[in-house]
Amino acid sequence: SRRAMGRAMGLVGLLLGLFLVPAVLVSTSFRHGAPRTEPEPELAEWEPVSDTVPENSLWPLPQSLRTSSRQLQLAPGRFQLVHGVGSLAGPACGLLQDAFRRYYDYMFGHSDRRRRSRRPLGAREEPEVLELQVVVKSQDPGCHGYPHLGSVEAYHLTVTEPVAVLKADEVWGALRGLETFSQLVYEDDYGSFLVNESEIDDFPRFAHRGILLDTSRHYLPLKSILTNLDAMAFNKFNVLHWHIVDDQSFPYQSIYFPELSDKGAYSYNHIYTPADVRLVIEYARLRGIRVIPEFDTPGHTQSWGKGQKDLLTPCYKGQQPTGSFGPVNPILNTTYDFMTKFFKEISSVFPDAYIHLGGDEVNFSCWKSNPEVKEFMKKQGFGTDYAKLESYYIQRILDIVSSYNKGYMVWQEVFDNKAQLKPDTVVEVWMGNNYAQELSRVTGAGFTAILAAPWYLDYISYGQDWKKYYSVEPLNFPGSEEQKKLVIGGEACLWGEFVDATNLTPRLWPRASAVGERLWSSRGVTNLEDAYERLSNHRCRMLRRGIAAEPVFVGYCAHEAR
Amino acid sequence: SRRAMGRAMGLVGLLLGLFLVPAVLVSTSFRHGAPRTEPEPELAEWEPVSDTVPENSLWPLPQSLRTSSRQLQLAPGRFQLVHGVGSLAGPACGLLQDAFRRYYDYMFGHSDRRRRSRRPLGAREEPEVLELQVVVKSQDPGCHGYPHLGSVEAYHLTVTEPVAVLKADEVWGALRGLETFSQLVYEDDYGSFLVNESEIDDFPRFAHRGILLDTSRHYLPLKSILTNLDAMAFNKFNVLHWHIVDDQSFPYQSIYFPELSDKGAYSYNHIYTPADVRLVIEYARLRGIRVIPEFDTPGHTQSWGKGQKDLLTPCYKGQQPTGSFGPVNPILNTTYDFMTKFFKEISSVFPDAYIHLGGDEVNFSCWKSNPEVKEFMKKQGFGTDYAKLESYYIQRILDIVSSYNKGYMVWQEVFDNKAQLKPDTVVEVWMGNNYAQELSRVTGAGFTAILAAPWYLDYISYGQDWKKYYSVEPLNFPGSEEQKKLVIGGEACLWGEFVDATNLTPRLWPRASAVGERLWSSRGVTNLEDAYERLSNHRCRMLRRGIAAEPVFVGYCAHEAR
Repeated sequence: SRRAMGRAMGLVGLLLGLFLVPAVLVSTSFRHGAPRTEPEPELAEWEPVSDTVPENSLWPLPQSLRTSSRQLQLAPGRFQLVHGVGSLAGPACGLLQDAFRRYYDYMFGHSDRRRRSRRPLGAREEPEVLELQVVVKSQDPGCHGYPHLGSVEAYHLTVTEPVAVLKADEVWGALRGLETFSQLVYEDDYGSFLVNESEIDDFPRFAHRGILLDTSRHYLPLKSILTNLDAMAFNKFNVLHWHIVDDQSFPYQSIYFPELSDKGAYSYNHIYTPADVRLVIEYARLRGIRVIPEFDTPGHTQSWGKGQKDLLTPCYKGQQPTGSFGPVNPILNTTYDFMTKFFKEISSVFPDAYIHLGGDEVNFSCWKSNPEVKEFMKKQGFGTDYAKLESYYIQRILDIVSSYNKGYMVWQEVFDNKAQLKPDTVVEVWMGNNYAQELSRVTGAGFTAILAAPWYLDYISYGQDWKKYYSVEPLNFPGSEEQKKLVIGGEACLWGEFVDATNLTPRLWPRASAVGERLWSSRGVTNLEDAYERLSNHRCRMLRRGIAAEPVFVGYCAHEAR
Repeated sequence: SRRAMGRAMGLVGLLLGLFLVPAVLVSTSFRHGAPRTEPEPELAEWEPVSDTVPENSLWPLPQSLRTSSRQLQLAPGRFQLVHGVGSLAGPACGLLQDAFRRYYDYMFGHSDRRRRSRRPLGAREEPEVLELQVVVKSQDPGCHGYPHLGSVEAYHLTVTEPVAVLKADEVWGALRGLETFSQLVYEDDYGSFLVNESEIDDFPRFAHRGILLDTSRHYLPLKSILTNLDAMAFNKFNVLHWHIVDDQSFPYQSIYFPELSDKGAYSYNHIYTPADVRLVIEYARLRGIRVIPEFDTPGHTQSWGKGQKDLLTPCYKGQQPTGSFGPVNPILNTTYDFMTKFFKEISSVFPDAYIHLGGDEVNFSCWKSNPEVKEFMKKQGFGTDYAKLESYYIQRILDIVSSYNKGYMVWQEVFDNKAQLKPDTVVEVWMGNNYAQELSRVTGAGFTAILAAPWYLDYISYGQDWKKYYSVEPLNFPGSEEQKKLVIGGEACLWGEFVDATNLTPRLWPRASAVGERLWSSRGVTNLEDAYERLSNHRCRMLRRGIAAEPVFVGYCAHEAR
């Protein structure tokens, strides 16, 4: 039977592993056809990739990986994650302590055998890994801080017996390395935990690897957001772009302006309290994930108008107000008074150095209809160019936010409309038509860019659309080397028109994983068949860890969703 | 605030309800623009549909509905579902007893107030419904039987004080009426349960209203299947078309041939035992749902070959077998010996009068390559027309199944290839190109047809694709009135290539609800705006009842998915 076959093959693999010394080392660069950097005389003896080869489930693929067929055992009852000698992050580093517990659970938690702490009498003496020693080398390891754009996520992992060593400058790299180590551990057909002798040198290709969640079109319960943060960590994402409010609802409970959510949220049950927000930020921090909130203005603000009088522009038909409202009213001082106070709060509630200020899709028709706005346009000498009015507004918002020592992200229109931007502004390119040209223009003007356009995951279609997301090359645009360096990453966006807690997880995962690997792994990692196999295994691992990621294609997982 | 407004409107509605006697009665036929059958002098006073009007959430819409704005209260602690005087299904009718308990829970279970059994001191004397009396009139009500194609699902429901009455010929109609009654009950802003005075006469437009689930491309855990049966009952579907095995895996554990699943299932964990199958059938029966298993041959049988030697055709390259296999081998007596025994088991395990025998997408290339098959073709005088060989095979299978007094369903190719079919054969039309013509041909030849082609719900796309499914008119094909009568229904098919337990429910619901209303409600019920509102509310109700149905569009539900 197939299962009997599997067992037999497992046994063969085990025997091979026991006697095949010295180890056969193969670099992934070979697997993907890039030039080899070291001679590998044993290559002729390399076996085709089989189910028991652990790198078959690594996701995203590390920058450099050498792995042997020599298998080492791990005994759940004996194995420990510990702070290595010389590490500058010791037991006082709550972030790592928490991560140790978490990753122990991911590796062994689904097993019934975690209490088996002593080697049973008569057991074979097999090579065993007893510890993973984590060594953090920076004087400022980051245990109590927040991850940021400049965080060092690189790590070096050596898996040998009797101890494996994970070295990183900062805890953020240690977190990434723990994820990789946990992905190397697998169970054989007898339920034994194994890891192959390996050496990994890894770092992200891009510094900003984000997921956009939209909690306005549909409210997402806290649990959905936290589950998504787990999944992000499994895929080495490091930014939650929280599109928290929009036209449809205002779930953010403001401390200064509680009426915004009192009147603008869908209901009292559809609100994020300050405690909820703190919880999201801390849960994300512990996983090395930044939380960048987006408060999109002046458009996309219908829900703001319900709890803040005179904030939105009254629309007119002829000389009469119609009773409906347009974008934020850019001509009133009260607007800027409000925004000053509001963004003061936001700057203090959200620790990240960046706030996303939106600025997309401003509809000018209401401004055009309003006699006072027209008057203001005349006075300012804007003529009939309402993009200038938009820039005027955005400029003032940017200045407000800058005064709180925050950087900002904006959607591409803000750049397109020629607002004066601080040099550290991040411009997010989202428009599907010719995003390469836009990347060219933004970076050509010296601004930092992130790419979202090809990764709007709310646009679903039949079949394996992950391949489409996977095949995007972010730096494939006309520009100098300097320009390319200005592209700091990208985001997979799951807009919420058709997404809530019922379908968020399977719709986002593992499709977003494709974006995760594109943003982490080296440029040459583009083989779709190889990715298919790793992604399928990675998806099964996500399931086992409680993420209801949907299937890549036909097949099954040993541990299905319950 | 919006919520305060809601309360005020609720109060106005309540007052209106209390004093607006005589009741304003409006038929749904008016709402959908069909000709009115009765004069309605009060129409001018009819208020626009508001949140508190219960028919706003009825799904599928009953054939005839008269509802008043007069609201009656229900007290969870007092209200009872009982067998009415003269009912031929009494307390010994386990099916109804079970349904009473279930529907009580759907109506009041999410409330904390179910213990409030006595009218509190000083409470207003308001009109109240104390009982729903269920009267089943047939001498053979069906309590212990199985639903079948000829089951009577019609019911009549009168909601007045102090008792509401649900009349039906058979328990199958009583189940449908209980669903409708439960949909009429709503909670006002104070948490009181209300139902409007109403009268409903209802029956299905089509007798066969199915959902196809595919448990071969991905295994579906029992729980997913049962949850789906719940959702089917909420949408008045009455057939589970269980596409239980296919090329990819054979999860059905056969009693006579256990090797089929031993070797053909994905693993030991991916099997339906006889007890599992019985559970599905009984769970379905209690909800008035037939279970029609599909054992698709001669194609789509790769997984069969693993546990049954010589069942599949060996493929050749030149004079050499390639080691791979094609469809079931139609030239061996052993094939028919196997099928005789296998379908004897299936006929006894599945109580439904029909078995689906598949017959779709037979690839002839392997047959063509096999020298013995070629020889057989010659001997039979089939020339090079392999469709004749396919028909020869199918014919023998049909005869086997007929000998067990079972009817059969087949995919359209079996008809297209001119197999000789029994007059009661149901031909399932699935090919997307010109299904209207195919319906015309099938019914023109006097066969019964069901339509699946426009309802392949595994084909997903962005946006509100339910409208596409909803707008299909199954009888919109060239043919006589007699031909139209031969279309007995349709099926929403969720093929499993990209579907498993992680995404089944939100992918199927509420999109399949659109098909549910098309197959139940009268032909004129086609207004998309009206359907949108009812479907959105219906989806929230499904959520409340534990079905993770995805959102129709932006918005929220009072009780979100947890």
